[in-house]
Amino acid sequence: MTLNILFHADSDHWDEYRQPLPAALEAALEGTGETADLRTAGGFAPEEVDFMAYGPTNDPLDFTPYTRLKLVQNLWAGVDRVIGNKTLTQPLARMIDTEGLTAGMVEWVTGHTLRHHLGMDTHILGQDGIWRNDTPPPLAKDRPVTILGMGALGSACGQTLARLGFPVTGWSRSPKSIDGITTHHGPEGLRTALSGAQIVILLLPDTAETKNTLNADTLALLAPGAMVINPGRGPMIDDDALIAALDSGQLSHATLDVFRVEPLPADHPFWAHPKVTVTPHIASWTRPDSASKIVAENVRRLAVGEPFINLVDRSLGY
Amino acid sequence: MTLNILFHADSDHWDEYRQPLPAALEAALEGTGETADLRTAGGFAPEEVDFMAYGPTNDPLDFTPYTRLKLVQNLWAGVDRVIGNKTLTQPLARMIDTEGLTAGMVEWVTGHTLRHHLGMDTHILGQDGIWRNDTPPPLAKDRPVTILGMGALGSACGQTLARLGFPVTGWSRSPKSIDGITTHHGPEGLRTALSGAQIVILLLPDTAETKNTLNADTLALLAPGAMVINPGRGPMIDDDALIAALDSGQLSHATLDVFRVEPLPADHPFWAHPKVTVTPHIASWTRPDSASKIVAENVRRLAVGEPFINLVDRSLGY
Repeated sequence: MTLNILFHADSDHWDEYRQPLPAALEAALEGTGETADLRTAGGFAPEEVDFMAYGPTNDPLDFTPYTRLKLVQNLWAGVDRVIGNKTLTQPLARMIDTEGLTAGMVEWVTGHTLRHHLGMDTHILGQDGIWRNDTPPPLAKDRPVTILGMGALGSACGQTLARLGFPVTGWSRSPKSIDGITTHHGPEGLRTALSGAQIVILLLPDTAETKNTLNADTLALLAPGAMVINPGRGPMIDDDALIAALDSGQLSHATLDVFRVEPLPADHPFWAHPKVTVTPHIASWTRPDSASKIVAENVRRLAVGEPFINLVDRSLGY
Repeated sequence: MTLNILFHADSDHWDEYRQPLPAALEAALEGTGETADLRTAGGFAPEEVDFMAYGPTNDPLDFTPYTRLKLVQNLWAGVDRVIGNKTLTQPLARMIDTEGLTAGMVEWVTGHTLRHHLGMDTHILGQDGIWRNDTPPPLAKDRPVTILGMGALGSACGQTLARLGFPVTGWSRSPKSIDGITTHHGPEGLRTALSGAQIVILLLPDTAETKNTLNADTLALLAPGAMVINPGRGPMIDDDALIAALDSGQLSHATLDVFRVEPLPADHPFWAHPKVTVTPHIASWTRPDSASKIVAENVRRLAVGEPFINLVDRSLGY
């Protein structure tokens, strides 16, 4: 039999997936007796589609006519751009791509944590002939790092930083136990987790509950001169409170990869603030090679009748 | 009995050691029946000194009158500023301070490797409102790193980078076997180790044989656009060849922490070169807290008659 797979995303994304996805589908379906017919938007009548690989576009899709659709496989980890779509009643899976997305996030978070820890910018921005070697940074073992969000990305980043010697504290909504990381949970646990942290990394999902998690109140709990790294989602930070904390010296720097509006407008104060580094939503890229294998794995599960992986819990929002 | 310990280094260093060193000596000698009498330069007649903690100063010391001296314990890993002193006939130990010096070097090397790998400078130097998110870097697994020098520092850095996913190749003069690292040795092995490397890290000792290890010939073996990180010793690089390789595009960047002359003169072309980052010999600091424990361990060994640790092999020069 043939499974009808609709690839519904911007054409830029199709350019990236057109090579690896057919190969991954063929490999995954080998021996199942099924084959995949992969087409882009408009290639099938909606009622013919069995499986959709979905990259949210600016126009929300009406999922109502996709009556045979068994799974919407989001191409990114964050589902905030699709979960509010009321026409979506079919199961939704997130992209949890350990090989690509997680590895990339761990590399970016570790790199920027070390950049802040070592004070690299002093030298990168100070190539002026002045030999500035006055004060060594503390060793990692004396630099407490707190990560908000202990999902697949947060816990992978935390364990890597812990192996480098940082004392790592992790916070999540529900209790977690993760080797090498001191964990806290719930509203009281958040205050404990943030108290005295010198570097805070935000990897929470974007839900109604996580909005403005870093605000004037919680920023005041950090160690004076703390640094904030946000590779998660923009709304987790109260932007005005962040700027106030940078201006008062409570924070010494913030590196922000995600924003309420992206691309961040050129006249946004973050761009010009001397204590803010804006990066353009690059902390983690979905890598088509490895992501194709995850898509294909859920197609294989559809073919053989196994439960899907990475399903989103609508009640939690992620 | 009492061991006479001379601390012979600049007064700046004494300021750092005057607290932790006496405490470390007392802890190490507890139960040995010996005590330490610790004094700075001029505190003892030379023939009374049993043990010297030594930080090379600009005036070479005449070791001849130190007739009772059992060990010169260098305060740094590099002994190139003392090993050529012909009056030194007493045993010489290097500082191999895993807790401080090695941890600091691993943090610096890992941070700058990730900085180059991720292309961070594009954003740190480009806070101009332009959203530059065109091309993701490869994952670490697709970024071959070669480390020249597989001593305590090189192998610790290599193993940390390997755990982050980088394919790490290590080169040393004599054969080594290190978990997670592909190793080569000897002159032919050097060419193999450098061929196709995208990031090269220099952690060789400064000896006659390692001078100009990176020269026009060996730089040509690297992958086009490769990056060089030198936290080792300045003379390992032929500076003119390095600049030529940067200008031709064979290298895309060099981060240099050590130089033939330090501080690097303000008019040196490295400071102004857009593809060079000068850092002021900060990759690894000897941390007085942990280094004091290493000094004290060799004092304890003297007290109880055990062999010294970290002795320098004069025939190898390190």
